[in-house]
Amino acid sequence: MIRVSIVGATGYTGGELLRYLVRHPEAKLVHVTSEHFVNQPIHTIHKFLKGRCGLICEKLHIAEIAQDSDMVFLGLPHGAAAKTAEAFIKKGTRVIDLSADFRLSDLKTFATWYGEHPVPALVKKAVYGLPERYREQIRNADLIANPGCYATTSILAGLPLFAHHLVGKGAIIVDAKSGVTGAGRKLETPYLYAEANESMMAYALKGHRHQPEIFQEWSKVASNKSLAASSFIFVPHLVPMNRGIFATLYAPLAKKIKADALREIYQNFYMKEPFVTVLPPFESPEVRAVTYTNQCHIGVALDRSGTHAIITAVTDNLVKGASGQAIQNMNLMFGVDETTGLL
Amino acid sequence: MIRVSIVGATGYTGGELLRYLVRHPEAKLVHVTSEHFVNQPIHTIHKFLKGRCGLICEKLHIAEIAQDSDMVFLGLPHGAAAKTAEAFIKKGTRVIDLSADFRLSDLKTFATWYGEHPVPALVKKAVYGLPERYREQIRNADLIANPGCYATTSILAGLPLFAHHLVGKGAIIVDAKSGVTGAGRKLETPYLYAEANESMMAYALKGHRHQPEIFQEWSKVASNKSLAASSFIFVPHLVPMNRGIFATLYAPLAKKIKADALREIYQNFYMKEPFVTVLPPFESPEVRAVTYTNQCHIGVALDRSGTHAIITAVTDNLVKGASGQAIQNMNLMFGVDETTGLL
Amino acid sequence: MIRVSIVGATGYTGGELLRYLVRHPEAKLVHVTSEHFVNQPIHTIHKFLKGRCGLICEKLHIAEIAQDSDMVFLGLPHGAAAKTAEAFIKKGTRVIDLSADFRLSDLKTFATWYGEHPVPALVKKAVYGLPERYREQIRNADLIANPGCYATTSILAGLPLFAHHLVGKGAIIVDAKSGVTGAGRKLETPYLYAEANESMMAYALKGHRHQPEIFQEWSKVASNKSLAASSFIFVPHLVPMNRGIFATLYAPLAKKIKADALREIYQNFYMKEPFVTVLPPFESPEVRAVTYTNQCHIGVALDRSGTHAIITAVTDNLVKGASGQAIQNMNLMFGVDETTGLL
Amino acid sequence: MIRVSIVGATGYTGGELLRYLVRHPEAKLVHVTSEHFVNQPIHTIHKFLKGRCGLICEKLHIAEIAQDSDMVFLGLPHGAAAKTAEAFIKKGTRVIDLSADFRLSDLKTFATWYGEHPVPALVKKAVYGLPERYREQIRNADLIANPGCYATTSILAGLPLFAHHLVGKGAIIVDAKSGVTGAGRKLETPYLYAEANESMMAYALKGHRHQPEIFQEWSKVASNKSLAASSFIFVPHLVPMNRGIFATLYAPLAKKIKADALREIYQNFYMKEPFVTVLPPFESPEVRAVTYTNQCHIGVALDRSGTHAIITAVTDNLVKGASGQAIQNMNLMFGVDETTGLL
Repeated sequence: MIRVSIVGATGYTGGELLRYLVRHPEAKLVHVTSEHFVNQPIHTIHKFLKGRCGLICEKLHIAEIAQDSDMVFLGLPHGAAAKTAEAFIKKGTRVIDLSADFRLSDLKTFATWYGEHPVPALVKKAVYGLPERYREQIRNADLIANPGCYATTSILAGLPLFAHHLVGKGAIIVDAKSGVTGAGRKLETPYLYAEANESMMAYALKGHRHQPEIFQEWSKVASNKSLAASSFIFVPHLVPMNRGIFATLYAPLAKKIKADALREIYQNFYMKEPFVTVLPPFESPEVRAVTYTNQCHIGVALDRSGTHAIITAVTDNLVKGASGQAIQNMNLMFGVDETTGLL
Repeated sequence: MIRVSIVGATGYTGGELLRYLVRHPEAKLVHVTSEHFVNQPIHTIHKFLKGRCGLICEKLHIAEIAQDSDMVFLGLPHGAAAKTAEAFIKKGTRVIDLSADFRLSDLKTFATWYGEHPVPALVKKAVYGLPERYREQIRNADLIANPGCYATTSILAGLPLFAHHLVGKGAIIVDAKSGVTGAGRKLETPYLYAEANESMMAYALKGHRHQPEIFQEWSKVASNKSLAASSFIFVPHLVPMNRGIFATLYAPLAKKIKADALREIYQNFYMKEPFVTVLPPFESPEVRAVTYTNQCHIGVALDRSGTHAIITAVTDNLVKGASGQAIQNMNLMFGVDETTGLL
Repeated sequence: MIRVSIVGATGYTGGELLRYLVRHPEAKLVHVTSEHFVNQPIHTIHKFLKGRCGLICEKLHIAEIAQDSDMVFLGLPHGAAAKTAEAFIKKGTRVIDLSADFRLSDLKTFATWYGEHPVPALVKKAVYGLPERYREQIRNADLIANPGCYATTSILAGLPLFAHHLVGKGAIIVDAKSGVTGAGRKLETPYLYAEANESMMAYALKGHRHQPEIFQEWSKVASNKSLAASSFIFVPHLVPMNRGIFATLYAPLAKKIKADALREIYQNFYMKEPFVTVLPPFESPEVRAVTYTNQCHIGVALDRSGTHAIITAVTDNLVKGASGQAIQNMNLMFGVDETTGLL
Repeated sequence: MIRVSIVGATGYTGGELLRYLVRHPEAKLVHVTSEHFVNQPIHTIHKFLKGRCGLICEKLHIAEIAQDSDMVFLGLPHGAAAKTAEAFIKKGTRVIDLSADFRLSDLKTFATWYGEHPVPALVKKAVYGLPERYREQIRNADLIANPGCYATTSILAGLPLFAHHLVGKGAIIVDAKSGVTGAGRKLETPYLYAEANESMMAYALKGHRHQPEIFQEWSKVASNKSLAASSFIFVPHLVPMNRGIFATLYAPLAKKIKADALREIYQNFYMKEPFVTVLPPFESPEVRAVTYTNQCHIGVALDRSGTHAIITAVTDNLVKGASGQAIQNMNLMFGVDETTGLL
């Protein structure tokens, strides 16, 4: 049994971790912590846990949790996670961090988007927790930077294109759409029901933090020149649904290719992946097919002139885009079958 | 008083015409027709008309309607509208056609998307009913091709860019999102509540009929060369809301320009337009701000590298994207203030 | 022209007043006030007003507003409205108060639900603004207590039953369902999109403030004995839609009656009402038929054993349940046709 | 391993059975059948099964399925299920029938609501599959009549009241609200997204088929006299959400009781139940807390006068209201821990 604790368990990603952990046959929940809800049963915050989880929210006592746990999930805000991760790792407890603190390996880029890094020395120890790319490194990692939801979806949509050097000159565009839980449980006017419902909007038009994360991972598989010569535009939109990311990637092609051939490249690329499904050419994925699952569905198309690939990808932002992927990483770290508890 | 009839009044656009016409101070509804609901009060189909409209659905009797009406709105399916339009025009009744039958002026392009044109001779008599472009021609037209909802939104989003020759080489992309009424009242599985709700998807990935309509109108104001050298990609998506179009236009810039300057160009371009509002730079429009209105709101932004304009635009697909714009055209045709009945 | 101001214009009911007033042919908007958004254009808060209303939010200066206005709408919180109403009335400006401050004529009952009344002397001057009951008094009133949304819907559902002494012994139950705007624009967790969406719940199970309001109005038309002998249960529920009240009233019948006869009683009762529609027996009203209208639709049914009437009624909580009814009252007060601006 | 087949697997309840069965550690899926989708992979109909289930839809071959399966789930329409159930049982294959065919033990009552029973002899062999009532009989049953969604929720809401003889004279009312999947995947106008969204309505105002099912089960625990003297009113409503039942039960009390005492009665009644949770007094359950779970949450309240109990209960209509409960029954029938695969 993997002894597991969750630090910061009362947000949406914390709740989703719990949804999967209460039925995980190889994990045993030990502690859940909260700043605001100390001493409250966790099922009074995540009411779907009634009858399924009797844990009480505790204050964060690192020493005690470290002693009782083989690993911890950190569900803390960006910035707050890094120091806590450091403390646990010093005590020998492995960490999966769901914040952005360790996702960017370049400290300068990090500073541009998030400010000075709180624990720069730890950044190079962190493994980017995308199993489709870093499965082997994840197995042995002590610190996982669990990818962002937009990032997971967009990276998976583009990886085969870049790995096969199919991206030509011109702008690469990701037009991304997210359900409202993507914003967390923030008490802000745009997330009120009567504001978000029957509406949609773009946001972060001056730049979104997942942009460098996506670019970093694509760059690692791309022939550097081709990607450097391109500009990358990422525009997120808020859509009236609870869960789900829909990413539409428009990529200029380096050479002519048929839709069937492109689909085969994708198919082969993800052939052994338990959580990535490639659809027939010109078929669009649907958000509802992946909500409450750890799946990413990818659709492959070309524009009419054949100059661009149009790749569509969907995930559940709380599952493959956050907590499900974190469980997948945990499974890998502890030598359990990767899909355990995730079907 | 303008004597008005609606041929094909039971669909969503028919209902929306009625919503505006029952409170229009200068229009008098005479006949409403339906193929399937003959002899049924129109308020049993559009229940919001209870207490507001006592008309009964009639069979289509062209002679009688022509005699009683100064103009007719055609809410018929594509293909069926053209012949009916011809018949009314022969009898001297002016026509606003909400179908696609007269939107494309090039018969070859029409044939590619819709098949052989049923009344080719009439095509050149039709005026494209976008008041922001063709206000003067509309005043005197006998036949209005009322624009499509995606087309209205996308064209308005791009017009100032093209008119000012700001579009450079590279792909022009419109990633468009539509509420479910955009599909009409079709009894098909994807439009069932439990299929469309909490989901989204792309569709028509092989090409959508509004694409040539958009291209046609942009071409007319663009320096031909620049647009011809570009490829134009249009991808529509279905979003879980009743009403609304959100179009995100990515256009490569021909030269560097600041966001403020770009916004000023838009501002000046639409300064006198009663139904187009340009937002401050980098602000996104919201669908909810335009639903149940005849407004189009436009947001102006640049990507981080400054190579692309990112223009966002919203309309209500049933109002400015269909019936509201049809009323606006009617007002122009009959010398009534353009905003009458539309505030 | 009626010169109109809105005190507290930035909430949902304020927005809805503005939606109707900008197109009202007999009203002229003069001032809009706000505590939090002073000096901001009202169209930055209610974005659907862009291009339709250029007013700027002002601080509340009673003297100035009173001088410029024939009447004011008060969109203030319960408790805060009463004193402001008093100040305006002293200056001779007529008031339509959308708060609950003057809805209950019995001061003791008021105190039970809202605490000590701030201006008890004014209570008896107030007319309850339900035109279907108090049309004549409204015409001459200086102070209108605009009814609550649940109250409007429930009262209209029950009035004919009570007026015809059809209610027998036993519990009278209203199971009411409301869209989320019914709660106003409160930044509270239950009203967040991801909390309210795909969910529903009951609330105020210990009692809701509209309960005495409904009881008061029914009592006035009922044979006192029958109603006094009954218990009245009112349970509100929150439903995932922006707008709309659906009230299901279960009333024990004093005597056997057929559904057709019951429907005829309703039909006759509301025959001349422009904003109440009675449906055929056993047909349910639909919320979507009344949203964005000032209508109340009422369905009439009996349970299988014939012992109870089951009356279903719908309104838009922001229109007939608040701002539309307020406009209707304004029309009556100033001798304008009652439906002006409301179709 | 329990060898399991699903006859009629392509509806919403079929999909939900599959969601649970693909992760059930003690069940092995053998066959899935469909009338309309023969030879199609089941994951093309239930797209969330991509990567999780490779079965192909087959025609219904009873002999083959019976041979390969220890039990079958029937997801067939009412009327069609009975004969199929009979055929399987003759071959020694145990059956869980999700239709209504065996839910009513009285053949006359059955005929009133569904017509002549197709296999009357089998009715008395069927066990009503509500584990909270019939756990022991279910273990040994060959034929389970899986309860309806409204019925499950309403029965559980009322059982403790009736079992403790707390229900007095007067009308017992269930005002029930259902998400749209409750209607199945029917291609009918009221279930279109743009019709059901932002709306709600009552239906079946002349009587609903779950009414006798609820009454039957309550009667079995009630002191016959009290229930016979009462009238029972059941009104279902359609609410814009995918999943969920919210039932509000109004029951006249036979004697005074405090809310705490009533809550304790409920608490004790369901103490050992893994899938029923009783909330603190006057707290309402929320649909979102039970969607995608097999839980029923129950809230206990009294009206202000203390004459009535107001019991609120929620389930997911597809899980505890259908497929989850069917899995729970399967677990019981095959001696597996009742909660297996359901957490």
